[in-house]
Amino acid sequence: MSKWILTSDKPDLGRMRKHESIWTQGNGYMGVRASFEEAYTKAVRNTLINGVFDCPKGEVPELAVIPDATNCDITLDKEVFNMICGKVDKYEASLNMENGEFTRLVEWTCPKGKKYALAFSRIVSDARKHIMAQKVSVTPLSDDADVELLTGLDGKVTNSGVQHFNNPEKRAYPDGVKGMYLTTLQSKVDVAIHFGLKISHECNEGISIDRRGLYSRLSRKVQKGETFTVEKIVSYAHSRDFEYADGEYNDEKLRSDGRAYLNEAIDMGYDKLLEESSLSWKNFWESSLVDVKSGNDFVDKAVVFSQYHLHIMASHDDNRLGIGAKALSGEGYMGHSFWDTEIYILPYYLCTQPRVARRLLEYRYMLLPVAKNKANRFGFKGAMYPWESAWITDGEACLEYGDIDLLTGKKRKFMMAETEIHITAGVSFAVWQYYCMTGDEEFMAEYGNEILVRTAIFWADRAEKKNGRYEICGVIGADEYKEDVDNNAYTNYMAHKNLVLADKILRENPNHICNKLSREYDMEDMAKKIAEVAENLYLPMPEEDGIINQFDGVKSLKPKDITYYKNLDTVFDIFKDYGLAEILEMAVFKQADLVMLFYLMSDKFDKETIRKNFEYYEERTLHDSSLSMCIHALVAVGLGMNEMADKFFYDCLCVDLGENTNNSDTGIHSASIGGIWLATVMGYGGLRINDSGISISPILPQGWESYSFPIYYRGSKIKVFVDKAGCRAERVSGDEITITLNGNKTTI
Amino acid sequence: MSKWILTSDKPDLGRMRKHESIWTQGNGYMGVRASFEEAYTKAVRNTLINGVFDCPKGEVPELAVIPDATNCDITLDKEVFNMICGKVDKYEASLNMENGEFTRLVEWTCPKGKKYALAFSRIVSDARKHIMAQKVSVTPLSDDADVELLTGLDGKVTNSGVQHFNNPEKRAYPDGVKGMYLTTLQSKVDVAIHFGLKISHECNEGISIDRRGLYSRLSRKVQKGETFTVEKIVSYAHSRDFEYADGEYNDEKLRSDGRAYLNEAIDMGYDKLLEESSLSWKNFWESSLVDVKSGNDFVDKAVVFSQYHLHIMASHDDNRLGIGAKALSGEGYMGHSFWDTEIYILPYYLCTQPRVARRLLEYRYMLLPVAKNKANRFGFKGAMYPWESAWITDGEACLEYGDIDLLTGKKRKFMMAETEIHITAGVSFAVWQYYCMTGDEEFMAEYGNEILVRTAIFWADRAEKKNGRYEICGVIGADEYKEDVDNNAYTNYMAHKNLVLADKILRENPNHICNKLSREYDMEDMAKKIAEVAENLYLPMPEEDGIINQFDGVKSLKPKDITYYKNLDTVFDIFKDYGLAEILEMAVFKQADLVMLFYLMSDKFDKETIRKNFEYYEERTLHDSSLSMCIHALVAVGLGMNEMADKFFYDCLCVDLGENTNNSDTGIHSASIGGIWLATVMGYGGLRINDSGISISPILPQGWESYSFPIYYRGSKIKVFVDKAGCRAERVSGDEITITLNGNKTTI
Repeated sequence: MSKWILTSDKPDLGRMRKHESIWTQGNGYMGVRASFEEAYTKAVRNTLINGVFDCPKGEVPELAVIPDATNCDITLDKEVFNMICGKVDKYEASLNMENGEFTRLVEWTCPKGKKYALAFSRIVSDARKHIMAQKVSVTPLSDDADVELLTGLDGKVTNSGVQHFNNPEKRAYPDGVKGMYLTTLQSKVDVAIHFGLKISHECNEGISIDRRGLYSRLSRKVQKGETFTVEKIVSYAHSRDFEYADGEYNDEKLRSDGRAYLNEAIDMGYDKLLEESSLSWKNFWESSLVDVKSGNDFVDKAVVFSQYHLHIMASHDDNRLGIGAKALSGEGYMGHSFWDTEIYILPYYLCTQPRVARRLLEYRYMLLPVAKNKANRFGFKGAMYPWESAWITDGEACLEYGDIDLLTGKKRKFMMAETEIHITAGVSFAVWQYYCMTGDEEFMAEYGNEILVRTAIFWADRAEKKNGRYEICGVIGADEYKEDVDNNAYTNYMAHKNLVLADKILRENPNHICNKLSREYDMEDMAKKIAEVAENLYLPMPEEDGIINQFDGVKSLKPKDITYYKNLDTVFDIFKDYGLAEILEMAVFKQADLVMLFYLMSDKFDKETIRKNFEYYEERTLHDSSLSMCIHALVAVGLGMNEMADKFFYDCLCVDLGENTNNSDTGIHSASIGGIWLATVMGYGGLRINDSGISISPILPQGWESYSFPIYYRGSKIKVFVDKAGCRAERVSGDEITITLNGNKTTI
Repeated sequence: MSKWILTSDKPDLGRMRKHESIWTQGNGYMGVRASFEEAYTKAVRNTLINGVFDCPKGEVPELAVIPDATNCDITLDKEVFNMICGKVDKYEASLNMENGEFTRLVEWTCPKGKKYALAFSRIVSDARKHIMAQKVSVTPLSDDADVELLTGLDGKVTNSGVQHFNNPEKRAYPDGVKGMYLTTLQSKVDVAIHFGLKISHECNEGISIDRRGLYSRLSRKVQKGETFTVEKIVSYAHSRDFEYADGEYNDEKLRSDGRAYLNEAIDMGYDKLLEESSLSWKNFWESSLVDVKSGNDFVDKAVVFSQYHLHIMASHDDNRLGIGAKALSGEGYMGHSFWDTEIYILPYYLCTQPRVARRLLEYRYMLLPVAKNKANRFGFKGAMYPWESAWITDGEACLEYGDIDLLTGKKRKFMMAETEIHITAGVSFAVWQYYCMTGDEEFMAEYGNEILVRTAIFWADRAEKKNGRYEICGVIGADEYKEDVDNNAYTNYMAHKNLVLADKILRENPNHICNKLSREYDMEDMAKKIAEVAENLYLPMPEEDGIINQFDGVKSLKPKDITYYKNLDTVFDIFKDYGLAEILEMAVFKQADLVMLFYLMSDKFDKETIRKNFEYYEERTLHDSSLSMCIHALVAVGLGMNEMADKFFYDCLCVDLGENTNNSDTGIHSASIGGIWLATVMGYGGLRINDSGISISPILPQGWESYSFPIYYRGSKIKVFVDKAGCRAERVSGDEITITLNGNKTTI
């Protein structure tokens, strides 16, 4: 079986939502879940466009589910096609990850006994970001049949009952194009959707409308053996489109642009659009593929899967857009960006498409006003990044209070926005990584330095002078099973890095940045403060037993044997036996925390310390977060704990592609998908990024034949090959460049 | 087959929505569509509570779909029960109209081959307006089975994609009761829904929540042959409940009232609730039944059907509530009240439950401020009733503009609110009828006279002096296929009646009413104006050819042979061939217009005029409105055109109960259902209401054995029996009373 193709040989309707998520198609501009054309009660037909956020009153902004265009009701001699009824004689569905096409062939015997062949295919164009195209074919196999298709735009969609659009305007134009125009209720984003059909044979065509719906109704007597094919081409455009970012927007232009996108695409038709899009995918794979030959189909495929999703999750051009925790594949986490983007996903872009990495960091730059407001709201100076972010002006998108508790009737205060502050250092860390990889001085002058200094100002203010040093108290670290802790190692080390980076800027090249900030701060004082806190911030070191405290007092937590829960395939099982309050008091962790540092700052710790602490904390970690396994895998590789590394690597591949029925229902886990790339390239590949450049020290995992991966580094592209003979790095393009390969400085 | 029971022996899933509508259960307080417990894509699960209106921005107020409690997902050995798949071996569904219970028995072979018996029953209590109760039973027939039920409150419902509630608060109480609390988005109506379960056997019980959903999840290994039964009792309460009409409302009280309603009902359990509700239904039928023995099951059943729905559509106590054009059986017409209420539905209450008729007229009294505002807005004095009304403060609920036209892109102005003004005279007509039937002086002094005078003031101002008389120009009459006509006969005659009634009040008993209105009008002048317009309003009379002009120039319309369309079973077929603009110019009518007058004012026209005009206009009438057939039936009876009467009567019975698949999808036709009663009692029964009392001159339709009907008249209840031997009237209760029976004054 090709590693490029996800296949399914029977309609697994019980896992429909998971399937819809993991087979999502997209192009960074939009994501379309792999819902079937015919209707099912469990289907969640989400089309999501990055940036089209809307905020219902009293809730938080979320990606608004866009009216659905994937629908096509098929009636065959008055029987409605549906795989729940009748008999499915043959079923072949596939997502071709090489070119992004989702196809489905069904041979179906209807309840009355007649046979039909149905074929469906669909793409979201990789070459035209506004375009989705679909093809539906019906072939009666046993007799001539009256075929009726109802296909159009369904605006009755909601985000699980939450409506985001006003009453749409519907239009039918003389050229056959149909349009639907809507505006989000609170954020007032105008959305224009157009569709047109290309039909293989003459047929009766009528318009059908219902409340918030606009459809074409096609009918034709189709001969036995004849194939009736309808192509549906759809364009999406909206008022936040990057094309209008400079302000030249009006509703009329939006509509005419939307029609123009569509008309070009209709002229091409499905097959040409597929060809064009496939070429675009081909270029992507040629430039970016991590090519694994592991001897295990599932592993090879899962690595392709991760890159497939990494490719479709990020906008290539729009620096006002983040990457949601479920990307554009479902309603989960409302489309919000978390710290995952910088720590789990951005390194992939950094190494393969630095341009996209830059624009993701520009998104964080755009969020500076929000981060400044947030810091101010909590009584701090500088920039305190939102724990969750949506549109650049939406502010902190993490709720301060959760829903009323079912049992107690009380509102539960969410502490994440106020105390899960490590995200601010995560952003700075990524800016530094970007600079290490690209040397992009222009970016640093325009954006990067300002981010580093403003965030350092926050840390300098947030740290408290205590016990003759600076401490950071009352936080949630990376591990979310502990709240309100002091001196969380991950937070302190990351904040320290942030402070040191800013200190360096303020020493070496203060003028430009101080000019920018001097209206807000006395920069001379501020530079001193940053230097002082950087110098004196408490960084937990190994205690006598060699263990670093993940936070103050970690060792006085109640011991708990969690072997039982670790051996279960599912997550959050411990909550079946204990309440959150109890878990907070136990020596039990959700995910990598201190262990994160052994990846991000491996040069700060000796190997023995890493080994000891890795073992100590892993034993107590439930890996209840999809962020945990990949980090453990790559740290285990560094420790030579290969078996454990392979186990974590495999677990990480299974987060979305495994058998667990519900865990991806509301969307794929974008951080874990970034984590697959991390575990491969940073784990097995041993890539590390430092001020002094990059170092690569790969291993070939047990049983693997070979793997290779590309890296863009300071304008040059190199490719690393690893097989049983060892590893080699080749320069593919750009100037000569020096890297550290297996510990040796090498110029290639 | 009993005429009391609607039955179905196979799941006709293609007509699911029609079925849901016509089998709707309710009690005047709420309506619950007869959706199946298990999920189907075509299901429209509406629970509607009268008065809970909400108005999305830019749209009109509509009855908000309330979170659904009819749902119950049933999983049997991991297979989801659904009648689309597997095999339905036995199916018996019925709506028992005698006691309001909806039951369904299904024997089902699942796709894997195991057999199960499932039984469902449901009532909306006729004795406790806040309560719905449901029972679900599962019996494995071929083997022990793991049975799982997921049952609760689904707040993801919308009105076809339009959301009306905020994010609900969910609660689970220690006594097992679960609550969901919501508020409508614009109108801020608080709604509290509670449910509790009674379970036949020990089982695992858990809580399941999702966004806007709150469920109980029950599971148990059920032995072969054992019946696992779950009763779900649900209470609904809201801040507009009549109990709070005096203003003593707070959210806490609402919740505790809702829990109290529920707890009482849970203590009783399904069977006792059914018993109690059945008794309430029994009392209703005993007092109100029109008992038809026609020799034709369908006819007998359809007459019961009409009374079933008349009983569940009107609130018994709340004078702030109207009756929607689809009552509480679906989203159609947004729950709005039209002129249908007074002209088609109210006579039924007048004759059977005058108390309900009075409170329906009090609703119109409550609307007087709205009617005054509306008159003022259009530049008139007096009270101009809204064409469509919702909650008493919602104002005119008819849109001024329709959606953007699909083809032209232009907004279409709706002329109904401004020109379909006959509703104002219709309300007055009903006030007069009420007074004729009850002699309720207190009502007239408090409400009725004011309605009559304020509406007459409107007519006196609206009529224009023209051609030496008063004319009413630029209206839409009862017939909606003609717009902007002058001197529509129906409108002018009805307005004239309105003016004459007010004139009489102002002459005979002016003080009370003039005191009320003198701050707004110079009542001396106004009384003169009303008298003058009443005297000089143009009332179209037969022309030389004997035909009365339905409006000025009706005879110069383009002739059109419509035999083809009249012979079709469906409505609106002419629109497939002609646009509205063309139809407006044709001598083609949608419904009874002038013909209405031959029913409402039969004493104004001689029989020959009626016959001639009936034939002339009927020939040109498409009966594209469900309001048309019943009126034609009863006028035909009066003309002795019995065959035609029977045909129209039968057509009227078929509006909802006929085979037409879609016409009742969004709800039953409440006016046509009132029309069935009208055609029976006013048509065959020959009942007429006049100043001088009531007259009854029944005929026995061809083939019928007998029929009887009760009438409340001036505090006495009489019952009229008609059979082959003739007719007789009996006094059932109250004092001696004089009526006109077959033309003779009779005291009984």
